[in-house]
Amino acid sequence: MAQEKLISTQEISSHKTPDDCWIVVDNQVWDVTGFLDTHPGGPTIILKYAGRDATRAYSEVHTSGLLKAELAPDQYKGKLDESTIDENWHKQPASENPEAVWGNDKPPLETLINSHDFEHVASRTASKKTWAFYSSAATDLITRDANKSCFNRIWFRPRVLKNVRSVDTKSKILGVDSSIPLFVSPAAMAKLIHQDGECAIARACESRGIMQGVSNNSSYTIEELRDAAPDASFFFQLYVNREREKSAALLRKCSANPNIKAIFVTVDAAWPGKREADERVKADEGLSVPMAPSQAKNDSKGGGLGRVMASFIDPGLTWEDLVWVRKHTHLPVCLKGIMSADDAILAMEAGLDGILLSNHGGRNLDTSPPSIITLLELHKRCPEIFDRMEIYVDSGIRRGTDILKAICLGATAVGMGRSMLFATNYGQAGVEHLIDILRDELETAMRNTGITSLDEAGPHLVHTGDVDHLVPRSPLHPYARKIARGRSPRASKL
Amino acid sequence: MAQEKLISTQEISSHKTPDDCWIVVDNQVWDVTGFLDTHPGGPTIILKYAGRDATRAYSEVHTSGLLKAELAPDQYKGKLDESTIDENWHKQPASENPEAVWGNDKPPLETLINSHDFEHVASRTASKKTWAFYSSAATDLITRDANKSCFNRIWFRPRVLKNVRSVDTKSKILGVDSSIPLFVSPAAMAKLIHQDGECAIARACESRGIMQGVSNNSSYTIEELRDAAPDASFFFQLYVNREREKSAALLRKCSANPNIKAIFVTVDAAWPGKREADERVKADEGLSVPMAPSQAKNDSKGGGLGRVMASFIDPGLTWEDLVWVRKHTHLPVCLKGIMSADDAILAMEAGLDGILLSNHGGRNLDTSPPSIITLLELHKRCPEIFDRMEIYVDSGIRRGTDILKAICLGATAVGMGRSMLFATNYGQAGVEHLIDILRDELETAMRNTGITSLDEAGPHLVHTGDVDHLVPRSPLHPYARKIARGRSPRASKL
Amino acid sequence: MAQEKLISTQEISSHKTPDDCWIVVDNQVWDVTGFLDTHPGGPTIILKYAGRDATRAYSEVHTSGLLKAELAPDQYKGKLDESTIDENWHKQPASENPEAVWGNDKPPLETLINSHDFEHVASRTASKKTWAFYSSAATDLITRDANKSCFNRIWFRPRVLKNVRSVDTKSKILGVDSSIPLFVSPAAMAKLIHQDGECAIARACESRGIMQGVSNNSSYTIEELRDAAPDASFFFQLYVNREREKSAALLRKCSANPNIKAIFVTVDAAWPGKREADERVKADEGLSVPMAPSQAKNDSKGGGLGRVMASFIDPGLTWEDLVWVRKHTHLPVCLKGIMSADDAILAMEAGLDGILLSNHGGRNLDTSPPSIITLLELHKRCPEIFDRMEIYVDSGIRRGTDILKAICLGATAVGMGRSMLFATNYGQAGVEHLIDILRDELETAMRNTGITSLDEAGPHLVHTGDVDHLVPRSPLHPYARKIARGRSPRASKL
Amino acid sequence: MAQEKLISTQEISSHKTPDDCWIVVDNQVWDVTGFLDTHPGGPTIILKYAGRDATRAYSEVHTSGLLKAELAPDQYKGKLDESTIDENWHKQPASENPEAVWGNDKPPLETLINSHDFEHVASRTASKKTWAFYSSAATDLITRDANKSCFNRIWFRPRVLKNVRSVDTKSKILGVDSSIPLFVSPAAMAKLIHQDGECAIARACESRGIMQGVSNNSSYTIEELRDAAPDASFFFQLYVNREREKSAALLRKCSANPNIKAIFVTVDAAWPGKREADERVKADEGLSVPMAPSQAKNDSKGGGLGRVMASFIDPGLTWEDLVWVRKHTHLPVCLKGIMSADDAILAMEAGLDGILLSNHGGRNLDTSPPSIITLLELHKRCPEIFDRMEIYVDSGIRRGTDILKAICLGATAVGMGRSMLFATNYGQAGVEHLIDILRDELETAMRNTGITSLDEAGPHLVHTGDVDHLVPRSPLHPYARKIARGRSPRASKL
Repeated sequence: MAQEKLISTQEISSHKTPDDCWIVVDNQVWDVTGFLDTHPGGPTIILKYAGRDATRAYSEVHTSGLLKAELAPDQYKGKLDESTIDENWHKQPASENPEAVWGNDKPPLETLINSHDFEHVASRTASKKTWAFYSSAATDLITRDANKSCFNRIWFRPRVLKNVRSVDTKSKILGVDSSIPLFVSPAAMAKLIHQDGECAIARACESRGIMQGVSNNSSYTIEELRDAAPDASFFFQLYVNREREKSAALLRKCSANPNIKAIFVTVDAAWPGKREADERVKADEGLSVPMAPSQAKNDSKGGGLGRVMASFIDPGLTWEDLVWVRKHTHLPVCLKGIMSADDAILAMEAGLDGILLSNHGGRNLDTSPPSIITLLELHKRCPEIFDRMEIYVDSGIRRGTDILKAICLGATAVGMGRSMLFATNYGQAGVEHLIDILRDELETAMRNTGITSLDEAGPHLVHTGDVDHLVPRSPLHPYARKIARGRSPRASKL
Repeated sequence: MAQEKLISTQEISSHKTPDDCWIVVDNQVWDVTGFLDTHPGGPTIILKYAGRDATRAYSEVHTSGLLKAELAPDQYKGKLDESTIDENWHKQPASENPEAVWGNDKPPLETLINSHDFEHVASRTASKKTWAFYSSAATDLITRDANKSCFNRIWFRPRVLKNVRSVDTKSKILGVDSSIPLFVSPAAMAKLIHQDGECAIARACESRGIMQGVSNNSSYTIEELRDAAPDASFFFQLYVNREREKSAALLRKCSANPNIKAIFVTVDAAWPGKREADERVKADEGLSVPMAPSQAKNDSKGGGLGRVMASFIDPGLTWEDLVWVRKHTHLPVCLKGIMSADDAILAMEAGLDGILLSNHGGRNLDTSPPSIITLLELHKRCPEIFDRMEIYVDSGIRRGTDILKAICLGATAVGMGRSMLFATNYGQAGVEHLIDILRDELETAMRNTGITSLDEAGPHLVHTGDVDHLVPRSPLHPYARKIARGRSPRASKL
Repeated sequence: MAQEKLISTQEISSHKTPDDCWIVVDNQVWDVTGFLDTHPGGPTIILKYAGRDATRAYSEVHTSGLLKAELAPDQYKGKLDESTIDENWHKQPASENPEAVWGNDKPPLETLINSHDFEHVASRTASKKTWAFYSSAATDLITRDANKSCFNRIWFRPRVLKNVRSVDTKSKILGVDSSIPLFVSPAAMAKLIHQDGECAIARACESRGIMQGVSNNSSYTIEELRDAAPDASFFFQLYVNREREKSAALLRKCSANPNIKAIFVTVDAAWPGKREADERVKADEGLSVPMAPSQAKNDSKGGGLGRVMASFIDPGLTWEDLVWVRKHTHLPVCLKGIMSADDAILAMEAGLDGILLSNHGGRNLDTSPPSIITLLELHKRCPEIFDRMEIYVDSGIRRGTDILKAICLGATAVGMGRSMLFATNYGQAGVEHLIDILRDELETAMRNTGITSLDEAGPHLVHTGDVDHLVPRSPLHPYARKIARGRSPRASKL
Repeated sequence: MAQEKLISTQEISSHKTPDDCWIVVDNQVWDVTGFLDTHPGGPTIILKYAGRDATRAYSEVHTSGLLKAELAPDQYKGKLDESTIDENWHKQPASENPEAVWGNDKPPLETLINSHDFEHVASRTASKKTWAFYSSAATDLITRDANKSCFNRIWFRPRVLKNVRSVDTKSKILGVDSSIPLFVSPAAMAKLIHQDGECAIARACESRGIMQGVSNNSSYTIEELRDAAPDASFFFQLYVNREREKSAALLRKCSANPNIKAIFVTVDAAWPGKREADERVKADEGLSVPMAPSQAKNDSKGGGLGRVMASFIDPGLTWEDLVWVRKHTHLPVCLKGIMSADDAILAMEAGLDGILLSNHGGRNLDTSPPSIITLLELHKRCPEIFDRMEIYVDSGIRRGTDILKAICLGATAVGMGRSMLFATNYGQAGVEHLIDILRDELETAMRNTGITSLDEAGPHLVHTGDVDHLVPRSPLHPYARKIARGRSPRASKL
């Protein structure tokens, strides 16, 4: 093995001709000039990556280790200096239209027939960083996976011989009509996967009649979204800024926007979770968002967009602050991120308009409970809550059957975040196609459980015996209560 | 990579000589004319696929990516235009007898020794579409897999030192003699896997003394089946047509056929399930069946035969319609597709002759309960039902032990659908061989649990502790009852 | 592809010279004469298999499909006619000493350090048929695997700060001293894996001070075993012959043999199980055993030695027959194969001397309960039995910890069958080595749970919470009892 | 295949020139002299391993079996005589700086972001023996794996809207300040992975403000550690020597060392466990440790360092001996290795200062209970113990969430052993980095469960419903008690 020299991307990029051709494979830099003519696959394919990273193309046809075996040791130039990687490095070869390249990789939209398909295509066609940011979750991914598997462990108790010729999926969320009991959960920076970003989502929601939750870290401002989809209904997801006045201004601006129907204050992200896949990929430091002071950077912990973009959020937020929120908006106020019946009860007592049971898609605290389990906890510990406020659920919903199960267990509607981002890969049409798929799956599930309206959904249609042991039943341990009462601020009526 | 041109199957087919030879591998079209002489395996094997899709043969001997490495870029002609695929494209090379080709692939019948073997052989030798249609199930396949695994989690409590020299598997289904407590569950379009289709099954059932359930979507008419097997006993599975009179006519025709002993009205298919493997493979639009107005077609959702062939079925069927069924037949009437004790009780109260606990092989509603769990639910919630009507079970039965477990838990008989289709791959002899295998497995299981007659089977011979938590025990939740009573039609005495 | 001709082993064997060299790989016959000189690995390795099956050697260095790619189509001669395979075909090349060849493959005995190692080596070095016969179990292998996994799910409750300097594993089985509470479970035809067969086991048991259960289908007679190991103690496992007088004669002969200390009547094999791996491999029809009228043969079901060698066993054996057994022997009589507390109670009431809880290693009825679960059932349902008779356990024991768990739960001793056969692969030394390993593991487990004598073992040292739901607790269902009482013969006091 | 001759490492080492070059791959010795010039990868890479074992480098680029195919049979010289392997054999080629070589393989420290990363890097860069010794555990690894998985099956019950701006992880262990409730569990021979061994750990603990448990089998003496880190706090883990006076002397020396704050007497290693991965790799017989009479050797059981280095430990240690320990030290005395509430109660009654719930990382008795399960057992059976003595937990902790769960369930602090050894791979900086990671993970977990101080942690913040069935609840079985009381020494008040 030749001397292990670090070579910058700038230097590599200068060796890009047939007379002087370097490529990078698995972070190793090779001079392949003399190999161009003897390459069994011909020189063209190699020259396409002259002065560039050829790892992906290489690994599609060759096993690792082959280069080392085929080339002479002195053709090995050194190691890629990863600290010199910049935006240019990841760009497609200049002679190609990047969109066309992606287009080549993405199968036609109509061949995608479920939410998993969108995820699979995104894993192959989104940039490494986008995939890492969207798909990652906290540490060992236990909550992320349980979010889905707990839905799978709830069984239907289907009824037969009902007239299910026509089925009605219409619902209302805080008084706003929704064609199906589904909304887009707020998720940051949709532009990473498609130029139209949240605008594409907004147009799709408008055309399909569902609400869009707009992230405080959206790639587009709420005004831009309204321009894109003038008849859409939104709710705004607020991260409360350490500098309260900035959040107050944002609240006032949202309240003045007639398309915004509610404020969802995020409470499950007191501190950004450790999303390791995200940390492991360097972030583009030029990245920022318009409605928050977030700015991407790479630091000693890694390149985690999820962490860095959240650094303005105030970890000191308490129940008292909700009074302050109410002061700056006339809109309904809901909480996003309730993970226990205890806090659901406090929210009910505090007079909130709704709560979104969510663990942030498993992105913040690993082994926090799956949302559907928290919904079951409400049934066991405070069933009266379903008459007092609207309950929403996100985290883990992938199928129409998941939606129906949540509705059966008392949810007003459910949200989907990641899947919607993956659908944005195809722009507005992608999101519309995903919504259509979910509506069709929901209707099929309703008909095959024997109901034609969501009013008929109820706990009698599901059996939860396989997950009941995961549901906390007891109120807080006395000892714990003492601590909780003594030290934590009390929730006051808003 | 050369320009990505779409090439029609028609064009490809015209390049099929040694002087002009194209082949398709993984949807990529290559000109291999110049490669014929240097191919290490010789030109013959390549020429066999001249102008055709060689993917399967290629992948048996080569790793993917090899072609791209071996051929020059200009030998790549473009991408297969999948929209031009037609029946001819999938045909075997004209110089060969298709049956012989399949015959080469299928191992000799006597080397198949269990139902899994038949499935395995079908997965390799049936056409892609046939395999997709037969094997697919709803969305994430959870119910399909649980159907089998729940049987595996029920343990025997075997007794020893019983005289088991002679064992008697004889049973009666609605008064009809059955050599073993097994029938062929109705399943559509058996001709897809063998020219003789349901006729092969009928002859096998006749020779082996078991009943055949004939699907409304059978490839052959009930008259043709009777001609094929004059001494066979059938029951007819009815999908009630939106146009009632057509179903009435069919009922009258069935009732006049002395070989038909009962009518099974399917109630678990109010709406066709989403079987994604089936949707992903294009259907042959020439396909139709003689006893229903079904006609295959490909639409925006895909090529799902299971969905399209079911489009005539009335999703408005209710308990009242069963009165109408009785008017058009003197035969016993049973329901196929009961998935809850609640509906079993309604069926009992409505005076049905029998119910088949079934979730349609997991093909309609994913996470609907495994049939064997529903059978346990009857034990917990309405044990008197076993004295009032016959109970059958299908979905998930693969072994003689599965049959015995269902009988121990009160079933009169069990049905097998998919396995019988896979056995039809070998025609009548295949179905006979599978029935013989199951009889042998059942006898072995009976002897090794210490019984010699099915009358001795009972719940004392099994332990269900590993699945009891999956069994709903409570009656309907009061809230749910209110809904159910208020909105759903009541079952009236037929 | 050339014409698919079937070629007999006799013809293949005649092409075995450098001038005319055929080999068989994956049942395909190839003429490799012209390839000898160009083979990158040289001609020697090929010539070693001239006229023979080279599949194993070939697959060690080449990927499948390579031959087809390298050779011309006309070098393919046809398919091996498997019906012509005979004993000679499987013999090693004549120029080599078979033992030496095996020796090459088998790692040195001292490198094997647990029972899994012996199984792994046997899987690679025993003949295909021997491996299939020894390792196979009934149908889907559920009981075989649960036998082991249920041991793994029982946890110790270890105690500390006990003086465990010296530990005593001594035990008594029916009054016979045993150096550890372990015996060799009777298993058929040990000669298949080593010329010395059961004689090797006998010598090892003699030298290590444990009992050997001798199978009715042993490769050697009980006299030969006694000659081999004059100081060994045996028990004889009886399969009762349909022709009672033959079994009576065998019983009298055993009773006259002073080394035989007990008779174990097998009751869990009323009918031979369906061991599919065994059926799939052709049996050597010359195979027979000296103490039973068993004779191997291949029939329409396959080549299952386990099935065919058991065909003399009387499936009509009942509790009454045990009276007849007592008449022909003065030795203690135990039952092998109890799988329920119900039959354990009957055995206790019938005055048997001991029972061996066993499901025949999962070889007879799939989903019969793991033996260790049956032991727990005795604790729940008839704890008094442990004061009335000796209880043994086999099926699933692989570790010293497994032995200790069974002893803690009341077993007098445990048996190991398959593992001992795999150890016989190395002859007497192999079995001794395995016994030494298990003794060491048992002593380590005893010390680390804080006990020094088996008298201290008890249920307080284990926690069974992870398997308790698998244990039947109820007595027989009344309905079932009625059937059982009405139809099965009553056990009478012997 | 050429004659199977055993060849010594000495002979192989003499063939190390371009004119006479042998290499060893997979224990086979090949003469590759004639192959140097034709090697596609060039001669340099081969010559690097001339006269040496090239297995690792070879397997990185070639599939096994390739050598045999490429070389002529006579180039095969024979088999490596493993008995001749000595320290020199495993050394890196003399021309290279070993650290640099390791450095090449190890990714930069800052790219490691969790404890798993350290383990992964160690598995690839530590010597085969070091990896085997550190990572191995008893027999089937069931306890090792359950140690971790049981943490994963405990769910948080997170609270929201707490002010978590500043979080305080400070704790006290036996009165000693600890910046986080974490200590380094004593683990033997850290020098195997890094020259600085335990000194590196000591410096890291000093700089990060946590305690280090020093193993009796440490590679450095307690004096050396104090010299390395004059302000560090240690506790000393004692294995009581069969020769008591040697342990007494060690105790007195420790007690005179002001940096040592406590003595932990190990009680879960009455007998060394069977760690098979460790046994399978030959030990360097020159290996010894300074504070114990341990000396590595290879014997008939294998090369198990864990076993051989423990041979001086007295398996006769009892509760009475703790009185003797107290006589030789004024320091607090704790027990390491309690695995049941029964012994925890005895320890409490005996007046110990603390207990470390531990199963030795699953290294001693397989299927001994996971420590976190034992902690739950204390809650169920003797909750008063948490007011009477400090409780520590190790075995299975890999994440900040694991630490918080243990604290919630009453632990004072937790220990990490293996992970710290793997971090020592990078010296002091590696251990510091790992501690920093864990502190960050703990703080994130505290904030996201809504607490800011460890005093607020309590059982109300976790739900254990998924593991509660694994927790023994009953006191000892009466029968067992009788045995335990009758035969085992009573614990007396110290």
